[in-house]
Amino acid sequence: MAEAGRRTRRRERTRDRAASESPKQRIKQSVWRHLRSPYPPLPLVSEDELEAIHTASLRILSEIGIDFLDDTARTILKQHGAEVRGGSERVRLDPEMVLEYVAKAPSEFTLHGGRPERDLTFGSNHVNFCCIASAPFCSDLEGGRRDGNYADFNNFCRLTQSANILHMFGGYPVEPIDLPPDTRHLDCHYSFLTLSDKVHHAYSLGRQRPSDAIDMLCIARGETRDSIAERPGMHSIINTSSPLRVDIPMLQGLMEMSAHGQAICVTPFTLSGAMSPVTIAGALAQQNAEALAVIAFTQMVRAGAPVIYGGFTSNVDMRSGAPAFGTPEYAKAALVGGQLARKYGLPYRSTNANASNAPDAQAAWESMMSLWPVILGHTNMVMHAAGWLEGGLTASFEKFVIDLELLQGMASFIEPLEISEASLAIDAIKDVGPGGHFFGTPHTLERYETAFYEPLLSDWRNFESWEEAGSLDATARANRLYRAMLDAYEAPKIDPAIDEELKAYMAKRRENPGIQQ
Amino acid sequence: MAEAGRRTRRRERTRDRAASESPKQRIKQSVWRHLRSPYPPLPLVSEDELEAIHTASLRILSEIGIDFLDDTARTILKQHGAEVRGGSERVRLDPEMVLEYVAKAPSEFTLHGGRPERDLTFGSNHVNFCCIASAPFCSDLEGGRRDGNYADFNNFCRLTQSANILHMFGGYPVEPIDLPPDTRHLDCHYSFLTLSDKVHHAYSLGRQRPSDAIDMLCIARGETRDSIAERPGMHSIINTSSPLRVDIPMLQGLMEMSAHGQAICVTPFTLSGAMSPVTIAGALAQQNAEALAVIAFTQMVRAGAPVIYGGFTSNVDMRSGAPAFGTPEYAKAALVGGQLARKYGLPYRSTNANASNAPDAQAAWESMMSLWPVILGHTNMVMHAAGWLEGGLTASFEKFVIDLELLQGMASFIEPLEISEASLAIDAIKDVGPGGHFFGTPHTLERYETAFYEPLLSDWRNFESWEEAGSLDATARANRLYRAMLDAYEAPKIDPAIDEELKAYMAKRRENPGIQQ
Repeated sequence: MAEAGRRTRRRERTRDRAASESPKQRIKQSVWRHLRSPYPPLPLVSEDELEAIHTASLRILSEIGIDFLDDTARTILKQHGAEVRGGSERVRLDPEMVLEYVAKAPSEFTLHGGRPERDLTFGSNHVNFCCIASAPFCSDLEGGRRDGNYADFNNFCRLTQSANILHMFGGYPVEPIDLPPDTRHLDCHYSFLTLSDKVHHAYSLGRQRPSDAIDMLCIARGETRDSIAERPGMHSIINTSSPLRVDIPMLQGLMEMSAHGQAICVTPFTLSGAMSPVTIAGALAQQNAEALAVIAFTQMVRAGAPVIYGGFTSNVDMRSGAPAFGTPEYAKAALVGGQLARKYGLPYRSTNANASNAPDAQAAWESMMSLWPVILGHTNMVMHAAGWLEGGLTASFEKFVIDLELLQGMASFIEPLEISEASLAIDAIKDVGPGGHFFGTPHTLERYETAFYEPLLSDWRNFESWEEAGSLDATARANRLYRAMLDAYEAPKIDPAIDEELKAYMAKRRENPGIQQ
Repeated sequence: MAEAGRRTRRRERTRDRAASESPKQRIKQSVWRHLRSPYPPLPLVSEDELEAIHTASLRILSEIGIDFLDDTARTILKQHGAEVRGGSERVRLDPEMVLEYVAKAPSEFTLHGGRPERDLTFGSNHVNFCCIASAPFCSDLEGGRRDGNYADFNNFCRLTQSANILHMFGGYPVEPIDLPPDTRHLDCHYSFLTLSDKVHHAYSLGRQRPSDAIDMLCIARGETRDSIAERPGMHSIINTSSPLRVDIPMLQGLMEMSAHGQAICVTPFTLSGAMSPVTIAGALAQQNAEALAVIAFTQMVRAGAPVIYGGFTSNVDMRSGAPAFGTPEYAKAALVGGQLARKYGLPYRSTNANASNAPDAQAAWESMMSLWPVILGHTNMVMHAAGWLEGGLTASFEKFVIDLELLQGMASFIEPLEISEASLAIDAIKDVGPGGHFFGTPHTLERYETAFYEPLLSDWRNFESWEEAGSLDATARANRLYRAMLDAYEAPKIDPAIDEELKAYMAKRRENPGIQQ
């Protein structure tokens, strides 16, 4: 009763802030900034337990081996000491050799954006948030769920550029299936380079697509295919075909990207109970085996090539086989994944995941069940940080805005608390005294404008004001906000000569659109 | 593309599980159990910074002092060495004296439920979840928002009894304003004792109400007013009237409860920017000063009386003065609150809070922004763990069910990961081999039924099945579930003689319903 009694004060003090502001002013997002976590990373398992996972994964690679399906890749592996037998795709890797090559990877590296402020560091306690990637569908409240298309793709590019809390792209936000498959990547990379100046991603689907992406990046940045390795600007996700298999298009893309010094993020998709053991420990051992094998391979392609350790161990619903995300098991695996990456001195990638079919409360709680371990576990690249729905099948515009709020909140959480004579405020407490209040005090007036995190989407008005304004829930408000963000979008400046050159490149490539693998 | 490609598998494997199950079977909640966190508590500030907050709070108590508005309380304080001047409510406390009395409080204690399995331990790494308390309003989707009433009160009692993840009551789930204020507590305690066998709460609103609650507890448990101190079964929240004031009804209630060995939870409601400084450090210094003063007072009333250190520092929206919960500032304060409680060797209380007006995505993300630090910071009593909405103004039936899912998930997260030869599963990985799957393997079949957390409310069906079933979002599903839980409710067994005695006690008290303070 007493707690509630105090809280009724809010009604008297609250005024309707929305009424006095234009739609454009109402986008109260945080400023663009680079994030670092000041807290030590949170471990989940002991050092001994971590060592047991590590040892198990090395046994998997030496005793069972892993299939590299591409001939060239196996030749490279053999040349560097792996056990490869003729007529078999199986590659067995000696533990010492694996660790020797993994050790060649940098513990920290930079990917360059379209201007210096957009450069991103991966490793240590740096945190970078990516837009959702690779969804076959997209959705919003008005249009419902629909096939991915280039118009929505471009809108997600605009929103990612506009959202200060997002640092980069993790892939195509949604697959634009209305574009021809052979040349789709040209249009997509043109969008990345002209609608945004943030770090982007090239798919490892054979050699030709990342090669074109590198060419276009060189045009946009005034680099050559030789010099671009010194100033990499893209990354590529390599998903293993778990269990223990790496397919040809992925390997060909990896070789093209690593050879040119672009970053690779190796992410086994080890769904516990389906593509990996039903025990999270076993799934992590398998994740680690697959990750180490492919990371070692990147260093055989080019020693020192930037590479990220990716973890994506989650579990399936054992009743249906459906994948689940943002589960307690997912949270544990995300923390252990970070411990493993740090053990090898590698940057770490994890994911803001959920399995909800709607941008609703479930989507929010499963995302938070992902984001807390992701942030506490020192994830350097947070994939699918904004917009992911349905376990990645749908890019949702409303979930995108909901996620911006979650990400801004976590970014504010990792700003250190100031403990000082001034912030401890004994004098202010003395001035106010028992029974007073702090609203108009000098200590408050000096600080109130920046004292607290200001939300993007949370509505803290009292119930009556909220009801009068239409009783819009968070999802409905997110819909309005994404439209307001699109209205307010400003494209980055691009040199007309570069634009011409990009267009000329695309036109030439379209003349012979066949994808050479 | 590759990640999404793998995920489309879910569609093939998913079957509609809801169709084959009765409503009763669909309540798949976790079993009743006592929770302990195996992880070390997460600190937010350094030991030096913690010491600075501690020192500042002791300076507040000695240099500024705190108003105890009750005469008897001030007399007790003076008898135990506090500086009290005639004609003033101000009490100044010497640092050493404060710490001497705080040290008399037990670091761990037990509250007894209606049967031994319901006994709860407070302190160390024990975690106990409370139902929402003290809301003036309640709501559900059909009935909307309405004044608190006895029918809804009883339904929340039934739901709290039914929800295995909830350990106890934190107060009246909703205020039954349709009952006469003078005798309302009799009806409410009768409900607590007959609809549930879980630990409950008595309000410190003067002496008479907790005295009646103690009498009724004695009847229900076969104890006397002397013996009940040895087997306490209730707690009472003491909110200070921040800044630095403790009101008469709270102090009279505290004295009655502590004198009879029932637990007190001292919780300053230090809203940063309103009732405490606009800096979180200052708010925490004030929180700590108020908590220590009242905790010390409990030990003057009865040395060794069980007491909990409560933290409830959050911030206001500086534009409107509205309180905000589940903010980044709240998360930081919750973690530091745990550090302070541990510094004094006291059990810790924190809160699952949010400020949303609807049981929507905002309610979920703000709750998760509260629950993660609450769990990682070793909160022993989690107040308002299920059902809180609108900063505590409304008890929501849908939010209640949403919270059960969040609590079950966090409880599963703190179950240790098993790292063993068997769970690392090298043999299973060997048997399956590259390119296989783990669905039908012996390793999976032996474990799949209990391998993963099974959700209460999360819907992991594919989009098509979910759409065919009506596209119900999490809030709509929560509505169905709370009704199903009420349908399945079973009252605890109660001795008819005890029931008679309780009714006779209430009838006698109603003859002279005046509340003697």
